[in-house]
Amino acid sequence: MLDKKLLIVSGTHGNELNPVMAVNKFRNLTLASNNNYFEFILGNPLAYEKGLRYLDIDLNRSFDSKKSFLNKDLYEVQRAEQIVKEFGPESPNGCQVVLDLHTTTASMGTSLVMYGRRKKDFYLAAILQNKFGLPIYLHEKDSQQTGFLVEAWPCGLVIEIGPVAQNHYDPIIVERFLILLKFLENLYDGINNNNLPLPDEMTIYVHQGSIDYPRDKDGNINSLIHPDRVMQDWVEIKNGDPLFLDEFNKDINYISKDKTYPVFIGEAAYKEKKIAMSFTKKETIKCSREWIKDFI
Amino acid sequence: MLDKKLLIVSGTHGNELNPVMAVNKFRNLTLASNNNYFEFILGNPLAYEKGLRYLDIDLNRSFDSKKSFLNKDLYEVQRAEQIVKEFGPESPNGCQVVLDLHTTTASMGTSLVMYGRRKKDFYLAAILQNKFGLPIYLHEKDSQQTGFLVEAWPCGLVIEIGPVAQNHYDPIIVERFLILLKFLENLYDGINNNNLPLPDEMTIYVHQGSIDYPRDKDGNINSLIHPDRVMQDWVEIKNGDPLFLDEFNKDINYISKDKTYPVFIGEAAYKEKKIAMSFTKKETIKCSREWIKDFI
Repeated sequence: MLDKKLLIVSGTHGNELNPVMAVNKFRNLTLASNNNYFEFILGNPLAYEKGLRYLDIDLNRSFDSKKSFLNKDLYEVQRAEQIVKEFGPESPNGCQVVLDLHTTTASMGTSLVMYGRRKKDFYLAAILQNKFGLPIYLHEKDSQQTGFLVEAWPCGLVIEIGPVAQNHYDPIIVERFLILLKFLENLYDGINNNNLPLPDEMTIYVHQGSIDYPRDKDGNINSLIHPDRVMQDWVEIKNGDPLFLDEFNKDINYISKDKTYPVFIGEAAYKEKKIAMSFTKKETIKCSREWIKDFI
Repeated sequence: MLDKKLLIVSGTHGNELNPVMAVNKFRNLTLASNNNYFEFILGNPLAYEKGLRYLDIDLNRSFDSKKSFLNKDLYEVQRAEQIVKEFGPESPNGCQVVLDLHTTTASMGTSLVMYGRRKKDFYLAAILQNKFGLPIYLHEKDSQQTGFLVEAWPCGLVIEIGPVAQNHYDPIIVERFLILLKFLENLYDGINNNNLPLPDEMTIYVHQGSIDYPRDKDGNINSLIHPDRVMQDWVEIKNGDPLFLDEFNKDINYISKDKTYPVFIGEAAYKEKKIAMSFTKKETIKCSREWIKDFI
């Protein structure tokens, strides 16, 4: 019998409002609040109040205890510790699975993000992909980006929906989160009753690296995402395809023998991380019946 | 002979990036920089550097010398004074016309905003509407919202383009600004050579008032823009049409015998101003040949 508690986090980034509205609505419309396998938290309450992504440091890069040791005076580092202490897998009232709800200004649609290749994550992601056809971005091998929230639990995924502006309410985006939350309400029943079959295989888009915007000698961005790439997240590009359009209207092309699938194209919050888009490689994974045992 | 200098302001709000990129590109692609009737300024350089709308106070509400007297230590109040001193109509190198370039997260399309009923503004707006078919929002009689940049010049319009997220580069939006900037390059030639006929009449959408989001007893927003209103800026609503969708999925309707045309629906930056949308009334204005004399 499954009795893992599900932690639903919204507002990990304080300027992503629609996940918070979706959770409020979900709690109002269902009995989720009385359901003892859900816990709900607002990730970054102070940043949410101010409409900022974060106050001191990105909360969703602050769940790395080794790195955090050096920054323990920062609000988000303290908040990460507090969340894990209260809702982490070792806590008496803790959760074993976490879903972290995010939005992006990029045209990612409704998508999942996995961090690393954990069997439990694969199981949950495969079920969600099979049910809803969601694309999955697997983030791995990126030493510049660590300390993601979901990594502090034995199983956890990010749900990432876009495009939507920061601090902008969008009822359509809220509705998309609600569909997934309602599904999660019956997740364990579905697993227990064998109503959620694992597919034979799943498709993932594996992180290969990120590229910055072209910049002038003073470090200012001087080229834009090429119009041909706008709203083309998950769409294959190949050698010679345009990536950027420079300040004189000249194309800057993708030069590589490897085809790639760009994601998070033009995401507003990644500019400070010097990321204009990330490149991924499409990979097919055979689903394993063993994953279920590991998940349960 | 027309010899009024045109001031082009971008980055009045530091998180609206595409106007700044458009101006940079315009200067690279044309001889605008050598053209002695253009002046270009970055409205709020410090906020632009940080990716914020403003530091202390909205710069585009800081051009009211009576109000500013009380806030003279604030960065934006000082910046407003500095801009007017250097580029205002009384300055030796000043400009007589200003165009202030903005973006919005609302689905306003490419549009113009006028402040008050000045003949010079009507003339310029009529020419632009006739050329490009742009909708015009006339902001007047709003004592809560004063001190707009363009009001400090004898003639000035806001160009407002959306939807686009704050801090998000969008080459399509940049291209829309470029079309207008290129047109402005030949504006005086067009007027002098009689190539820009004034239409017989023009349509404007006149500000009637704004409404806030419904909120709970703690002041938290608990209802969203209704899905029927999403991306429906400039579209007529009438008595009984849905406006918001509450936390229990119940409609909150527009109740009034007057038809209205909502604008800036859900604009992210207006949440702090407690504006979910503004209501306008459609009005037809007879264009007057006298406007040209006043403009010249």
